[in-house]
Amino acid sequence: MSERLARALQRTQREVRDFFDRYLEVPNDERGRLVDAMRYAMLGGGKRVRPLLLVATAELYGVERAAAVRAGCAVEAIHVYSLIHDDLPCMDDDAVRHGQPTVHLRFDEATAVLAGDSLHAFAFELLADPAMSSDPFVRAELIETLARASGHAGMAGGQMMDMAAEAEGARQFDLQAVTRLQQMKTGALLGAAVEMGAILARVPDEGRAYLRAYARDIGLAFQIADDLLDVEGDEAKAGKALRKDEDAGKATFVSLMGVDAARRQAHALSEQAIGHLAAHGAQDSLLADLARYIVERDR
Amino acid sequence: MSERLARALQRTQREVRDFFDRYLEVPNDERGRLVDAMRYAMLGGGKRVRPLLLVATAELYGVERAAAVRAGCAVEAIHVYSLIHDDLPCMDDDAVRHGQPTVHLRFDEATAVLAGDSLHAFAFELLADPAMSSDPFVRAELIETLARASGHAGMAGGQMMDMAAEAEGARQFDLQAVTRLQQMKTGALLGAAVEMGAILARVPDEGRAYLRAYARDIGLAFQIADDLLDVEGDEAKAGKALRKDEDAGKATFVSLMGVDAARRQAHALSEQAIGHLAAHGAQDSLLADLARYIVERDR
Repeated sequence: MSERLARALQRTQREVRDFFDRYLEVPNDERGRLVDAMRYAMLGGGKRVRPLLLVATAELYGVERAAAVRAGCAVEAIHVYSLIHDDLPCMDDDAVRHGQPTVHLRFDEATAVLAGDSLHAFAFELLADPAMSSDPFVRAELIETLARASGHAGMAGGQMMDMAAEAEGARQFDLQAVTRLQQMKTGALLGAAVEMGAILARVPDEGRAYLRAYARDIGLAFQIADDLLDVEGDEAKAGKALRKDEDAGKATFVSLMGVDAARRQAHALSEQAIGHLAAHGAQDSLLADLARYIVERDR
Repeated sequence: MSERLARALQRTQREVRDFFDRYLEVPNDERGRLVDAMRYAMLGGGKRVRPLLLVATAELYGVERAAAVRAGCAVEAIHVYSLIHDDLPCMDDDAVRHGQPTVHLRFDEATAVLAGDSLHAFAFELLADPAMSSDPFVRAELIETLARASGHAGMAGGQMMDMAAEAEGARQFDLQAVTRLQQMKTGALLGAAVEMGAILARVPDEGRAYLRAYARDIGLAFQIADDLLDVEGDEAKAGKALRKDEDAGKATFVSLMGVDAARRQAHALSEQAIGHLAAHGAQDSLLADLARYIVERDR
């Protein structure tokens, strides 16, 4: 990881942490447990790749930092809500996340469902508030982008397909199907983060094409790297259970392509993503560093 | 129920049904099951009190019908998502809703979690879309109002307190606490429906005070009537399990006040709500009919 990227990640991690620490105040009644669970999930770690993607895109265009951080926190709230729900016993049934018990184990299942729901609503509260932007067009466009990326045509739809991929395995899911699945499950939200940075910068729709191409490539690269980590990674570093895909006989990029071809593909996508940036003079940006990091990370 | 209200309810029920039938298209892939579950929950019945509240408020001010219906559908999507999640085994563990198996029984738990999440996102998609209103201020204000009413300071927070009320019973929950709980759990969303009707009509904030007072009163009246129906209602008409509160030893308006005082209180609140309307010349409106119906309904 470049030193510049390491500093930027640390800064964003601190900003996201401070933001939720400040805005998620624990009320002195029975809702205290709910907000405790929201804080536990939001403050318990995470690479904060999505907020950094948003901030780094916004930075290309000189957007005010606080606005980018706030919008990044909305995307991260959606990401974390989805992790809480995905970890539930009826979904992926995971016990550990960021090296800690998952929310339904640390609290209980009902609190986990409600904490996810509350973070989901909180994301849109953050974006709809006039404090987000004095321009209501910007607020409405941010919300439309995030809602579409997280709903049944995006992240939630992708999770539904992912469960089918686990149930049916490679019999039904070829490379094309897994690509489409992951473009929804992971790619939609990563893409939304980049798109929202461009919205804050008021980049017109036609000026966003290279950013969309960049986001599409790193979205797939990110997921292939995740599949590789599931096979080759270190559970202690990952802070979660690994080797789950293979045990489940699930169709993934690695099960379909093999380890070596998958690694080559991830790197090729990362290079391709940087190529889109280069065509717009942004090859020496944090976004380029992120594209490299995404396929080299060990957690 | 007045004939006028019966016609208005039927019309709104048809409009809400048609809206979701049209906008929730079932894709021809593994997400089909997810959208099937969303349709099952959205089209399976329901009084549509929230959309009617919104439409009736908007009607006072001559708002275009289609806009009010669309916003009403967003509120109803939030209401239905909350029912799907509340019915889950880890929450209220209900088997029947609108006389049919609940979503997690008709489909499965994972699909129920994701269908709720997807309807949650869909509500904000509906409001953020330029088709909602050409005025982005209106879109942003609608979203802010709905997100706040549904999140941890509103509906989700109220559900959290409600579970505590069931666990701790009347020992911890006096009338004041139950009132506060229900103002969040049920009242916040009913209030949002009225508020959103006023937002569509561009009623300035200070002009909404009487509508807020009306919404607060009918919100409590609605919940007291619900508690009475839980004790005295007919399961076949209600289409869901009743007598659950008493069995659980839960603190409710009825357990704390007794049946007779609760009924008197519901009617007094209904009259008071109509009084707020009368002070603004709206005593002969659908909103007044609704205030009467809410405490007289048998389901």
